[in-house]
This record gives sequence, structure tokens and C-alpha cells, in this order.
Amino acid sequence: MIPRYSRPEMVKIWEPENRFRIWFEIEAHACDAQAALGVIPKEAAKAVWERGKWDIARIDEIERETKHDVIAFLTNLAEHVGPEARFVHQGMTSSDVLDTCLSVQLTQAADLLLADLDLLLAALERRAREHKRTPTIGRSHGIHAEPTSFGLKLATHYAAFKRNRDRLAAARADVATCAISGAVGTFATIDPAVEEHVAKKMGLTPETISTQVIPRDRHAAFFAAMAITASSIENLAIEIRHLQRSEVREAEEYFSPGQKGSSAMPHKRNPVLTENVTGIARVVRAAVIPALENVALWHERDISHSSVERLNGPDATVALDFALARMTSVIDKLVVYPENMRRNLDALGGLHYSQRVMLALTQAGLSREDSYKAVQRNAMAAWENRRDFRAELEKDEELAKLLPKAQLDGLFDPDFYLRNVDVVFARVFGKA
Amino acid sequence: MIPRYSRPEMVKIWEPENRFRIWFEIEAHACDAQAALGVIPKEAAKAVWERGKWDIARIDEIERETKHDVIAFLTNLAEHVGPEARFVHQGMTSSDVLDTCLSVQLTQAADLLLADLDLLLAALERRAREHKRTPTIGRSHGIHAEPTSFGLKLATHYAAFKRNRDRLAAARADVATCAISGAVGTFATIDPAVEEHVAKKMGLTPETISTQVIPRDRHAAFFAAMAITASSIENLAIEIRHLQRSEVREAEEYFSPGQKGSSAMPHKRNPVLTENVTGIARVVRAAVIPALENVALWHERDISHSSVERLNGPDATVALDFALARMTSVIDKLVVYPENMRRNLDALGGLHYSQRVMLALTQAGLSREDSYKAVQRNAMAAWENRRDFRAELEKDEELAKLLPKAQLDGLFDPDFYLRNVDVVFARVFGKA
Amino acid sequence: MIPRYSRPEMVKIWEPENRFRIWFEIEAHACDAQAALGVIPKEAAKAVWERGKWDIARIDEIERETKHDVIAFLTNLAEHVGPEARFVHQGMTSSDVLDTCLSVQLTQAADLLLADLDLLLAALERRAREHKRTPTIGRSHGIHAEPTSFGLKLATHYAAFKRNRDRLAAARADVATCAISGAVGTFATIDPAVEEHVAKKMGLTPETISTQVIPRDRHAAFFAAMAITASSIENLAIEIRHLQRSEVREAEEYFSPGQKGSSAMPHKRNPVLTENVTGIARVVRAAVIPALENVALWHERDISHSSVERLNGPDATVALDFALARMTSVIDKLVVYPENMRRNLDALGGLHYSQRVMLALTQAGLSREDSYKAVQRNAMAAWENRRDFRAELEKDEELAKLLPKAQLDGLFDPDFYLRNVDVVFARVFGKA
Amino acid sequence: MIPRYSRPEMVKIWEPENRFRIWFEIEAHACDAQAALGVIPKEAAKAVWERGKWDIARIDEIERETKHDVIAFLTNLAEHVGPEARFVHQGMTSSDVLDTCLSVQLTQAADLLLADLDLLLAALERRAREHKRTPTIGRSHGIHAEPTSFGLKLATHYAAFKRNRDRLAAARADVATCAISGAVGTFATIDPAVEEHVAKKMGLTPETISTQVIPRDRHAAFFAAMAITASSIENLAIEIRHLQRSEVREAEEYFSPGQKGSSAMPHKRNPVLTENVTGIARVVRAAVIPALENVALWHERDISHSSVERLNGPDATVALDFALARMTSVIDKLVVYPENMRRNLDALGGLHYSQRVMLALTQAGLSREDSYKAVQRNAMAAWENRRDFRAELEKDEELAKLLPKAQLDGLFDPDFYLRNVDVVFARVFGKA
Repeated sequence: MIPRYSRPEMVKIWEPENRFRIWFEIEAHACDAQAALGVIPKEAAKAVWERGKWDIARIDEIERETKHDVIAFLTNLAEHVGPEARFVHQGMTSSDVLDTCLSVQLTQAADLLLADLDLLLAALERRAREHKRTPTIGRSHGIHAEPTSFGLKLATHYAAFKRNRDRLAAARADVATCAISGAVGTFATIDPAVEEHVAKKMGLTPETISTQVIPRDRHAAFFAAMAITASSIENLAIEIRHLQRSEVREAEEYFSPGQKGSSAMPHKRNPVLTENVTGIARVVRAAVIPALENVALWHERDISHSSVERLNGPDATVALDFALARMTSVIDKLVVYPENMRRNLDALGGLHYSQRVMLALTQAGLSREDSYKAVQRNAMAAWENRRDFRAELEKDEELAKLLPKAQLDGLFDPDFYLRNVDVVFARVFGKA
Repeated sequence: MIPRYSRPEMVKIWEPENRFRIWFEIEAHACDAQAALGVIPKEAAKAVWERGKWDIARIDEIERETKHDVIAFLTNLAEHVGPEARFVHQGMTSSDVLDTCLSVQLTQAADLLLADLDLLLAALERRAREHKRTPTIGRSHGIHAEPTSFGLKLATHYAAFKRNRDRLAAARADVATCAISGAVGTFATIDPAVEEHVAKKMGLTPETISTQVIPRDRHAAFFAAMAITASSIENLAIEIRHLQRSEVREAEEYFSPGQKGSSAMPHKRNPVLTENVTGIARVVRAAVIPALENVALWHERDISHSSVERLNGPDATVALDFALARMTSVIDKLVVYPENMRRNLDALGGLHYSQRVMLALTQAGLSREDSYKAVQRNAMAAWENRRDFRAELEKDEELAKLLPKAQLDGLFDPDFYLRNVDVVFARVFGKA
Repeated sequence: MIPRYSRPEMVKIWEPENRFRIWFEIEAHACDAQAALGVIPKEAAKAVWERGKWDIARIDEIERETKHDVIAFLTNLAEHVGPEARFVHQGMTSSDVLDTCLSVQLTQAADLLLADLDLLLAALERRAREHKRTPTIGRSHGIHAEPTSFGLKLATHYAAFKRNRDRLAAARADVATCAISGAVGTFATIDPAVEEHVAKKMGLTPETISTQVIPRDRHAAFFAAMAITASSIENLAIEIRHLQRSEVREAEEYFSPGQKGSSAMPHKRNPVLTENVTGIARVVRAAVIPALENVALWHERDISHSSVERLNGPDATVALDFALARMTSVIDKLVVYPENMRRNLDALGGLHYSQRVMLALTQAGLSREDSYKAVQRNAMAAWENRRDFRAELEKDEELAKLLPKAQLDGLFDPDFYLRNVDVVFARVFGKA
Repeated sequence: MIPRYSRPEMVKIWEPENRFRIWFEIEAHACDAQAALGVIPKEAAKAVWERGKWDIARIDEIERETKHDVIAFLTNLAEHVGPEARFVHQGMTSSDVLDTCLSVQLTQAADLLLADLDLLLAALERRAREHKRTPTIGRSHGIHAEPTSFGLKLATHYAAFKRNRDRLAAARADVATCAISGAVGTFATIDPAVEEHVAKKMGLTPETISTQVIPRDRHAAFFAAMAITASSIENLAIEIRHLQRSEVREAEEYFSPGQKGSSAMPHKRNPVLTENVTGIARVVRAAVIPALENVALWHERDISHSSVERLNGPDATVALDFALARMTSVIDKLVVYPENMRRNLDALGGLHYSQRVMLALTQAGLSREDSYKAVQRNAMAAWENRRDFRAELEKDEELAKLLPKAQLDGLFDPDFYLRNVDVVFARVFGKA
């Protein structure tokens, strides 16, 4: 993560302050549970809460000797708590603290991402409703197909981010587990009741079965949900980049006063924000592979996952948070040009009515194959010579017999294509 | 997919026979719905069901000219159905057929994979219960940690595959949608009722909003679920490969009479099946990246996703099906050596009791840091000189004062580590 | 690999016939070398060449019992060769045969791919020279920037594929090694002279140091070279897809008589070939990750790489071969529309001259910042109101003082942008 | 990149100080060339060198308004240089500066990585020579195969890193190009001589043909070379992790006084450094996919590559630098246990001589198949019952006839396996 693509709230989750705070809470809650079980004195648990403090510089200093971060933290904690500190971490292993802490951090990160998604969804719905009936050409293969509305375009992305919200919420639940199960997960040296108490206090659920660690398929599922969300961001970003192309100009990122598009060419207004998140999406997406490689740890654990998570945990969540927020801002301020949409819609001389003509011909008794050929013949002539499709049809004597001019009028009706917009909006947003 | 790593049922899903059968059913059900709406004659729908046939060689021939597979199919279908065929596919686009077909194929594939998982889960539970109390050393970092049971090891993997089953079931639901929404998803040329009817008949749900295609984040989620499952296979495979190492020999893949391990070395019995699925897992896992790249199609669709899905759809599902079945067989027939587990458990002279000694020292009033150092000092001496840990402790005069021999006897108790196995089994399997 | 995306020559490399033929040659050449060293009788080597045969069905049958493919082959070979067969494979390990065979197959595949690249390079050069001075607008961020020529566009891709050719040739050399070094690579049971002889005969170089296998970083480098080539294919494919967009129409894939673009919309002509290779590129690219994961085999080897290579070896080479050939055909037949390029070039009212005006202003004494602002002000007015940029400039009284109309005429010169085309062509093609 | 896995020299390359310094040099050298061509006054070029300064805080401030980093830099530069600054950047585009700067940064990074590799190679050679004839069991599939030497093991990795050094040197050359070609690479507004001059001064070569940017297949090749190197690190790391397993104990990472292996278990000494670089390798490796996705930019460029490079450029080079250095330290200080190697070598009762016995039987006239079966029969009996292989053979009356005891003595010779070590060392290190 780099400042350029970071927002402070998400960054804070990954800072030492937050991590040590969570470590402390895990240890202190565990002491409470141990005291309730009679394993350690009640005074010891109380002392931990009362005198528990830590100092990051001092922890770093101890870690340089012990080469073990949790031991360094515990040693520093003991320096503040005093003799009762010997009852801290009883029967626990470092991973009980580290993995439960990571679960808390990931749920915190997930909550920010879910809030980001809610804002993006709100922006998409607002703009979709605004342009519910703004006609625009639908394109498959980059080629004009049939009309749709700009609101329907945005509704498609709304639905995708809605699914991503559901996936991320499921992934949040997947990683929201607590393991306080001792050296290799047997609860030999610690009672399962401690895990239950800590889980409850930290907003987690007890892990079904842990080894020394919480199983990494959970984390892989979390990175996968982020990767899919990133890909949906890319999808929306590419849509906008296409719409802003010089030849299309149907929509444009907001360009602020004083902004400059190019050092060489003063005329430029580039879709740099959506290009930017397109790139960020690649980075978030690629983090799924190391997360998957982390699943196959050796026996009851090896620590190869740790460096991956120290790097990609912050990087992927911070980048995705940034990209979601940037995309929300783009949608919120997007400059839409309905008149250009109309211009593009009309540019091909009505070619997009070809299906309606073909269907009318089959209804008039022509086979599907013959109808297709007849329409294709006229469409290609119009396309290649930049002529008007309707005019071509009217000149085609064979077709004139089957499709009188009055019927053609009915077919070349732009409103026809939006007749079911309400149905679709009701499906997407709950109400039309 | 190659025959060596394929099973016939999964292969069949991806063969032309199945695909064309599904295409036909989609078209025929759509005709029924269109007839019910009065858009096409009831006789036409009836004719399609009655006379609908197709011939793969003929379809291929037509496709060579039209360069369009759905048109080739429809043309061939029309050759059998006759004039009423002109009412087939009315208002639909090819992707309505192709994407809905892919949804059916993926749900068929998911059903096989879920059945595979059920068999693997059954095998894991059976072997886990068999070895519920078979003691074995737990290892973190590849280093002896504390004892666990072989049943707990298997239970860990059971729980992972259980989660993968849930993820795959969710992914199945994610891709089980039907789109019959016309050229760019507006329902301009086809009534939403047709989609509802076809969805119901094909065991799917109507897509919330489609463009020309069903959105590809759904498919990406499916590939992600497969990728995580593959990684869990790798995890279990690596466990078995470790256990079969010459120095460990705690378990072994079944080696059949007549089997040969090496062309050069007749003494070899290698864990080739688990090595094999380790590699297959890499291939299934890597398919998630193209699936994620497929999400960002241009506008209302481009067809770049199609070649990816034609290649990776069969490849990944067939390979995962094969790997799951192979893994089930490995677990079912796994040769377990409890006596070797015991031998390894005892090999380090009781070092794995180090935590219990340390905890007893803290309970005896020593600080955590001093307890740690005292135990570490004796442990390292035992480790480096291959001496007995307990003997070292008894020789240590400082410790002898705090831990009388009788108390040491209580600490060096192998049964201690399995005292909570029932609790964990109840969590994993529903009952101990 | 699937027939739809396969070409026979590349497929043949991966068929059993070719594999067993190579295995036989390796074994027979090794016998020659062993006979020359006096390790085995000269008659034995002769017998192998004279009577050596094999039968695929029979090999399969033996493999079902032995579960070992090389042993099955050797057993079947012995059935034909007779008693002298006991001297075959002396001191060798299966991997000596398998890995050296894979080296041969990969060099065969590389040769096809290099030939593919030569054809693509030829097509690109031919079309680049044809359109060396065909003016077209250059676009950054999808936004009109400054003019370039269509030939320069193609020359860029030529240079990229030239680099890919070099990379693939280097990767070919990387995998073109032969290992005949015995069970764990020590040459304990076989003389290094055997390896040298076989290497020479098979067109390979002796591996510097092998374990039981040829090190997999070599193969990873080969897949990486293919992945980069695939990405360059995607780059060119996306260029063409953009140029074929309805709004752009500067170039178009050849659309054959009888071809149909859409089942629903007879007017459609879609860039399906370049979309297709865009998808194939994703698949080839993703194969690099499993190849990289294959590098870290355990100790002197584990066999996890094998399933990856059995799947991805054929899949990636066959797909890349197909994509290169398809791309060559697309370039060869590409329909180019210079008049549309001109139309697009002129569409923005001369905005692309903005840099020249700005530079002239700085030469006239204005600071860079003020020049920029003055030009940007007029450019934005032209852009937003679809007005002519030059006309705006002429109306701007402040600028009129610095840039008299005559000087403006000189700046608004379309030929200016192609004045260094010869220089660039000479760099790319060796001569202008 | 995070401090925990970063070394200062590599970090510095990516800091703003270095970036702006390079930008300045590019602009100033370009001015020199422009002055030599007479495009700008000689005094202007001189003024740039003499008065050129910049202030990072001020650049950030300007960028907040212009949203363009190069313009912000140029504006701030102009504030120091004065009126002559209007001649800076004449005819150039931002990417000329940015991409040439990235080329310089990547060559700087490559130089550090090459130096890292030299140190690792030196460490590997030193330890390989030290243990050139230290016998140890070679393992395939994790199963004892035949003896090798620990020096040969290290030599294998030496050869791999040698290849990676070559690949990285080639990749360095691939990215060491300079582009000063103007807005879309046509040299319309700037003479090719400027590019040549800047290239020479910055230690680069002129780019064959650029668009607005240097083509990204070059950068992808650089990331691919890093990814392969990372995979070789993983390979070596996994070897060491295996050797340190409790059951194997043939080598061990250095464990410093005061170090603690586990918070719970004082007896632990874990291979945490090699586990750590195993994880880092995953992260470096995964960066190759976004780099490949960056290749297919739109037309003459889009800026989606930029965020990928801002994130992964520093991350991957810093992480790889760290992992190489850490691996060098691990090798340098690796604690090797020849006596444990010997113990493991002998643990299977001579099973690893099986091939020699089989070959002797074929030389004695038995067919390969019968020899194999006879040896396998005795080997399996020894293996399953933990009996001595040689004793089994001597008891086998059938074999006793073919292999008299004296001949067996000759076969069971541990020195036999190292007889070609000198040959291999000469290949790997240039001299034995």
C-alpha cells in the first residue's frame, strides 16, 4: 500500500497500534476466562486489565533479540503488569493471538468494504434512476446491437455489486472465527471455554477445529471475494472508459477546474480515474493466488502464510477500499451526455431495427433462414455504403410485398426497446 | 482435459450430445411459453417437441459456412422441424441459449462435485473415527510440537472440505440462473414470462438483470470455489506426502501387487497419487485468474469469455472431479502405521512436554520469562546432544526444587493431550 | 486443448505416437553409447534398433498393472526385442527418458511457434508498409491525441512480436537440455558420455546438473515466454477490436460470404476472431503460475510437476499456436478503411494540433504555464460545444497577437506528424 | 513493501527523491540535445542545469490542483529556473519522462538484484565445496532413492540461480530503453537525436518504437524473470525446511542465543527464515500476472499500467531483494549435520543399493523384468518388516546362485555414488 492509493481508516486497521490493542484484548479476555475456570487467580486477570500497557519501541527492541513478535509483546506487557504477568498467555500459543487478531482485522476491513459498497450501490441506484429512460445503444462485440437505456446499464453494475456485497458478507463470516486452542489445536493446555469467551468478546465465533492456526481456506475465500469485487470494478471502469472515447463521448469523468490532462496536449480530458482503478483491480485480483497457495501449510502449520498476509492483507484491503471509494466518486459526478447517446443511436441509419424486421418477416410466413438473408442483404448494403437501412428496405421489392410501409413505421419505433424497463428495475432495486 | 485425468460422467456434461440436448430443451420450452403468450402458434411449439432432432455432423457442416454455432444448430433443427421452425428462437439471442446452457452444465458439474465431496467427507469421517485416539506428534514448522491424534488430523481436513462443500453449493446457486432476455437484455422482443418458464423447466432461477449475457462475476465465483477446494486437496495431499517420507513412515498410499515405483530402483514405494493431485490442484487453481479476467466484458458483452470457458470449463471441472475421487480413494485405502507414529512421538526424548513443564513452573511462582529460559536451556541441551529431556530436567538442580519428581510424572503423561478430543469431534461431526 | 482451437501439427507433438518414438530413440541412442563404452554388448544395441517396436494398446495394458508408464513401455519393447532388452535402460531412471523427451517435445513446439511468429511478422510488415503513410489519429486514454500512421501502429506490434520471437528462442534454448544422469543425477550408474551422445543425437545440450529431473525453472521460463507472447496477441487483438467499434470503423476483420454475426440481429459484423484470441491469451497466460509452482519440487524431485505438464504442456502450446495463426490470418485479411480514419481524424475540429499551438506560444515568449492555459481554454470550449478549434483560436484576441493567421496555417499541417516515419521504420524493419 | 521485509538501498530507488532526480536529469539532458539542435537557446539548457531545483511538498501542492504529477514537477521546476523554463519539456510528453525514469529505476533495481545473486552464488559455492563429498541420501517423492552428496544438492541450486542471473541480466537489458518520442511516438515534435542523447546519458538504449509509452511486454519480461527467481528461492527454502524436520535433522537454520522459537513450547527451533521467504516468493511470483495484463494497453496507451507499477514495482523488487539477502544469510550460516545424514543414509538397511543389485542380475543374464521382481520382492520384505535388505538378499536362494557374496560386497559400496562428483562440479562451477 502506498499513500497515493490509501485511505486512513483502512490503513489504521493494519497499524501496530491496532494490532497490539487487539492482542492485549485477546490476552486479557483469556485471563478473565481462565480466572473464571480457576486456572489463574482472579487478581491476575484484574491486574492485566488495570496495569496492561505496552510500548512499540520497546517491543521492537525485545523482538530484535527473541526474533519472535508475540514473545516480545508479552515480555513488554509483563514489564508493566508485574509478577501476575506469568499467568498471561497460559496454555496458549502465539498463533492463538495472531490468528484471532487477524480475524478481527479482517472483519474490521470487511466492515469498511461493505460500507464502501453501500455507498457505491447508492450512487449507482441514484444515477440509474436518473437515466432510467435515457435511450442509448446497446453494444455487443463493440458493435451496435439494439437500444437500451443508460439506467439499465448502471442497473447491471448495481446488481453485480449487490452480489459482491453478499459474497463479501459471506467471506466476512468465513474469517470471523476465534482460535484459542493451544499449541496444536487439541485444547490440551487450555479449556475450550476460554475460546468461547474470547470469541464472544471479540465479536467472533469459535473455530470448529484449528491446528496451530485457523485454516487458510477461510482467508483464501476472503481474498477471492475481494478479487471478484475488484473484477466488477474493472468491468464498470472499462464501461466508462469506452463511453468517454473521443468517438463515443456519451459520458465523461468529472474534470475539475485547474485540472490538466496531458503535459503535451492541452486539449486532453482523459478517463484517468477509471484507468487507475482498472490497474488497481489487477493488483487486488492477483492477491488471490498467494492466498490460495497459503492453504496447503505443512502438518499443523508452517509460517509461510505469514509474510504473504503481512504484505497482501494490508495491500489488498487498502487498495480495494480506495478503488471502491474512487469508483463511487466517479459515478456520483459522472457527466452524462444524453444528446450524444441519441446521436450515436441514430448514426447507423436504423440498423439496430434489423431483428424486428426479421421477426416480422417470419411472422409474415418467410422461413427464419430466408428472413435472415433478406434482412442481412439490406443491412450490409447500408453498413458498407453508409446508407440508411430503412431506405434500403423500402427499395427492396421482394420485402415490400411482405412488409408494407405502415408496418415498417411500427417496427422503427425507438420506444419499443424500453417497454420492460420497469420490470427489470423492480427485479434489481426491489421496486421500479 | 485428458483421458488420464478424466472420469466419464463429468466428461459427458461437456460433450456435444449434452450441449445440443440442452439447447433443444431451452428452445422448445421457450416455444411453449411463447405459444402460451400467443406470440407463436401452439402447433409450432408442438412440432418442435415432436419433430425436433439434430445431427452433429450436419451442424458442423453448416457452421463452417455461417461461422456461428447457434445458427448452425437452428438451421439443422429447422431441417427436421419444417416450416414451423421459423417460430423457434423468436426474439431470442444466441447467448440466451448459450448462457442458459452453460448454467445447466455448471449445475450438473456442481452436482457431481458435491457428490464427490460427500464421498470424500464420508471417507475422512470413517478414518478419523477409526483413529480418533491414535496418538501422533503434532508438528508446526515441520518440527515436533505437542501430541495430537491422527483422527484429529483427518478431522481438520473434514472440516475444510465441509466448508468447501458449502462454498461450492453457494457457487452452484450463483451460476444457476437463466437468461432469456433478447439481444441486449431489455426484454424488448421477448416477454419476461418466457424466461420464467424456461428457468423453471431447466431447474434454474431467472437472472436478475442480464445484458446480452449472464454476468461473469457469477462464473468467477464458481471457479473461485473450485480453486479453494483444489487448494484444500493440495493441503491434504501434502500431509500424506509428508507422512509417507522415508524418515516418517506414519502412513502410506496403498501400493497394489504388481505395482512398480521406479524403473531404476525396485525398492521404491512413492506417494504418486497425492503428488499427482498436488499438481492437478495447481491447474484448477490457476483457472480462477482467466475467470476473473472474464468479468470485465465490453458494454453489453464481448465474446472473449467464450474461449476461456470452452477450455477451462471442462478442464477445471473434469480435473477437480478426478482429483476429488482420487483423494477419496487414497483416504479410503490409506495404510496407517500407529506403531511408527508412536516411535516418532518418542524419538525426541519427551521434548514435547516442554510447555507443560513451563506452565508448572509459572504456577510454582517463576515468572514466564524465567520459566521459559529454564525449560529452553534443558530442551536445547537434550536436542543438541540427542539426550532425554526428562533426564535433563531431573539433573537441573534449580528446577528440582520447584518441580519434584512426582509432579514431573504427572506432566509427562501422553494421555493428557487427547483429553478434549470428544469436544472437537462433536464440533466437527455433530457428535463425538 | 479442444479441436476447435487446435492445429494438427502441434497436436501431433503431444500424441502418444510421437512420445513413444522419442522414448525409443533416447533408449536406443543410449544403448549405442553404452555399447561404445563396453557396458553392454554391441549386439544388444543393434538388436534394439533392429527389432525395437511397441504397441500403444499393449503398453496401456501393462501400465494398468505396473502403474508406471516407462516400465510399461520398456516391458512392451522387451517383448519385441527379446533377451537383449535387459541391456536397455541400464543405469538410467525413468525421468532420464521422460524429461529428455519433454525437452524434445518443447523444442518441437517452440519451432512451430517460431514459424508461426515468422508468418505473423511477415503479415505485420506487409500491412505496415502498405499503410506506412496512411494517416490516423493516435489515441491515449482512448482520447484523440495526435496523428500517427496506421503503418506505425502495426510496426509497434511487429516490434513486440520480434521481441517475443527472441524471448521464445531464448526459452527454447533454456529447455533444450538432455539429462541421462541416473537415479538422482550423480552419474553413479551411468557414464556422462551417454548423456553427451544422446544429447547430440536428439538435438539437445547436456544438462549442467540434474537431480532426478531437469530443473523446472527452465520450463517456467518457457511458459513465461509463451505468456508474454500471448499478452502481445491480446494487445494487438484489442487494438483491432477497438478499430472495429461501430463508432470508429477504421478497420474490420474479414467477413466472409455466408457468415452470420448474430442469430438475432442480421445487421451484425463482429470482431469475433480477435475477441476469441483475447480469451485464449488469458488461458495461455494463466499457465505460467502452475509452471512457476512446479519449480519447488521436493529434494531430488517429486512428481507433482507431471500432471501440470501433461495438462498445460499441450494446452498452452496448442492454444498459442492456434492464436498466432488466427492472428496472422486476421492481419492478412484485415479490411482497412483509410477514409474513415480521415473522418475520425477530422472529427474533433483540429483539437489534435493543440501541442503545436502551445509550443509556438512558448517560442513566442509566453511561459509554458500560460501557453498551456491559453490553449486549454480554447480547446475546452471547442470540445464542449463541438466547435472548430482553429476558429476558436482565431477569435481569441490575446492569442491573435502572438500567432498571426499565417503561422497558424503552418501549424495546422497534417503532414507534419509523419515526417519521421522513415526513421522509425528503419529502426523496426532494418530499412525504411 | 513493509519495513519488516525491506532493505534501504532498494527502498531508496522508489522514493520521491530518486524519482525527481531522474526526472530532472532526463529533462536537462533533453534540453542539452535540443540546444545542440538549435531548437531552444543554449542559455536555456544551461539555466536548467544551474538553477534546476524542486521541492517535494510544493510539487504535491501543485498536483492537488492539476491532478498531473509531471506537470506539477515542471511547474515547480519553472519556479526555480525562471523564464527559460518554457523551453523545458519542449515537444515531449509526460510518458517520455515517466517511462524513461522507470527504465532507470528498474535497471538500478536489477543491479541490486544481480549483486544479491552474486552473493548468494558465492555462499552456495562455498558451502557446496565444503560438502562436496559429504554423503547424504538423495530422495525422490520424499522417499530414499540413492546416495548423493550435500555439495551436489547445493550445486543444483547454484546452477539454478546462475540461470536466474542470466535471465535477470537479459530482463535488465529488455527494460533498459529510453523513449523521448513525443505525444504518440512519432517524433513529430521532437528530433530522434534527443532520444539518442538522453538514452546515452542515462545508461539506456533508444526504444525501437514507442507509442506514447514504452511497450509493456518489456516490463512483463522483467517481472517474469523476478518470478522465476522467486520460485527458485522457494525451491531452496523448501529443501532446507525439509532437512530441518525433526525426523530428518540434516541441516538447520542458525538459531541465535536469546532467540525463541515458540511462545508456548520452549523446546522449538523452527526454520522460520526459509518459511518466511517461501511466502515472500508467492507474493513476488503473483506480480507477474498484473504485469502481463498490463501489456494490452488501449491504442497508443492507457494509464491502467501505472497503478500496477506504482504498487508492484517497489513491492516485488524490494521483496525479492530481501528474500535473496535472507537466503544468502541462511546458506552462509546453515548448520549442517553430516552425522545425521549418515544416520539417515543407513536407516533403511541398504535399500538404496537396489538398483545396483538389479543391474548386476541383468548382467548375470536375468531379464530386466525378472531382475526387477526379484529385487523388489526382497526390498519390500525389508521395508515392511524393518529388516536389513542385504540380509534378505543373502537369504534368497534363487539370487545367491547369481550373485555370490563377494560380488554383493562390491555392490554395497557407499563410495560408488560419488565417483562422478568432480565431473559435475566442473560443469557447474567451471572447475572441480
